[in-house]
Amino acid sequence: MDRTLTPAPLTAADFAPFGDVLALRDAPDKTINDGFCGRHHDLGRLDFGSGRAGISLFDARPRSLPYRFDLLERHPEGSQAFVPMHRTPWLVIVAPDEAGRPGMPQAFIAQGQGINLHRGTWHGVLTPLEDGLFAVVDRIGAGANLEEYRLDTAWTVVAT
Amino acid sequence: MDRTLTPAPLTAADFAPFGDVLALRDAPDKTINDGFCGRHHDLGRLDFGSGRAGISLFDARPRSLPYRFDLLERHPEGSQAFVPMHRTPWLVIVAPDEAGRPGMPQAFIAQGQGINLHRGTWHGVLTPLEDGLFAVVDRIGAGANLEEYRLDTAWTVVAT
Repeated sequence: MDRTLTPAPLTAADFAPFGDVLALRDAPDKTINDGFCGRHHDLGRLDFGSGRAGISLFDARPRSLPYRFDLLERHPEGSQAFVPMHRTPWLVIVAPDEAGRPGMPQAFIAQGQGINLHRGTWHGVLTPLEDGLFAVVDRIGAGANLEEYRLDTAWTVVAT
Repeated sequence: MDRTLTPAPLTAADFAPFGDVLALRDAPDKTINDGFCGRHHDLGRLDFGSGRAGISLFDARPRSLPYRFDLLERHPEGSQAFVPMHRTPWLVIVAPDEAGRPGMPQAFIAQGQGINLHRGTWHGVLTPLEDGLFAVVDRIGAGANLEEYRLDTAWTVVAT
């Protein structure tokens, strides 16, 4: 029997164990461009280990709820940031590490927000709900940087 | 008397002297997530010099055409990537360097595309036309990294 998860709106506080939410702060850190632009500065803890930073684009097929999954993955050598190139909602699935395996997963709905997964954080595959175009800032470099874990029992994310 | 510029659609070939266009290639470099996602890999020539990569958000006030400007700037110590967090059009203004000063500017209209300005490229301030939310990947580090140049005569970008 499947187990179910209900997604919560993505907030910096709830997401802190897994990574950074890339969203506007209450006020900009600096105003630039003659007052026309606020800079919300240095929002993610980037870590590329022995590699370097790269920007790639991900073009993912949208999914819908209920969404069933039994695969989580992590990148042991670097952080991975996802920036939606749209304003539509997308699903974020993460899990704490428990002795080298993913623990109880959590689901969030992001909208108008990016995320930066900290190095080694268990997460689901990219799951847009409407528009699948994302910029990804992650590690480019030699060596294996993907670890996958197939769950014994699937989880299903259901609409709230 | 103002001089006028007519913006062209943003293409990788036309933009190559200034930087990289962050857009999907004709085909992904790799298919991931059980076939659900295409990865268009490592699209920009990032350069953070003596600093490190950071992700910031820019919240800019939208402008409209005709758009008049007399200020260009560049970042001598690093590249700067702009990723729109929306699908609406935005204006990109760049100029070649001519002996330490900006030469004849060029204007482009981007939509569903990001850009990565190569280190030291002259450019205008961030000029969204509808939605002003952008993720910016640029250099975080010590030392001055902004050079501004006020043009003797303004330019005006007019609608095509």
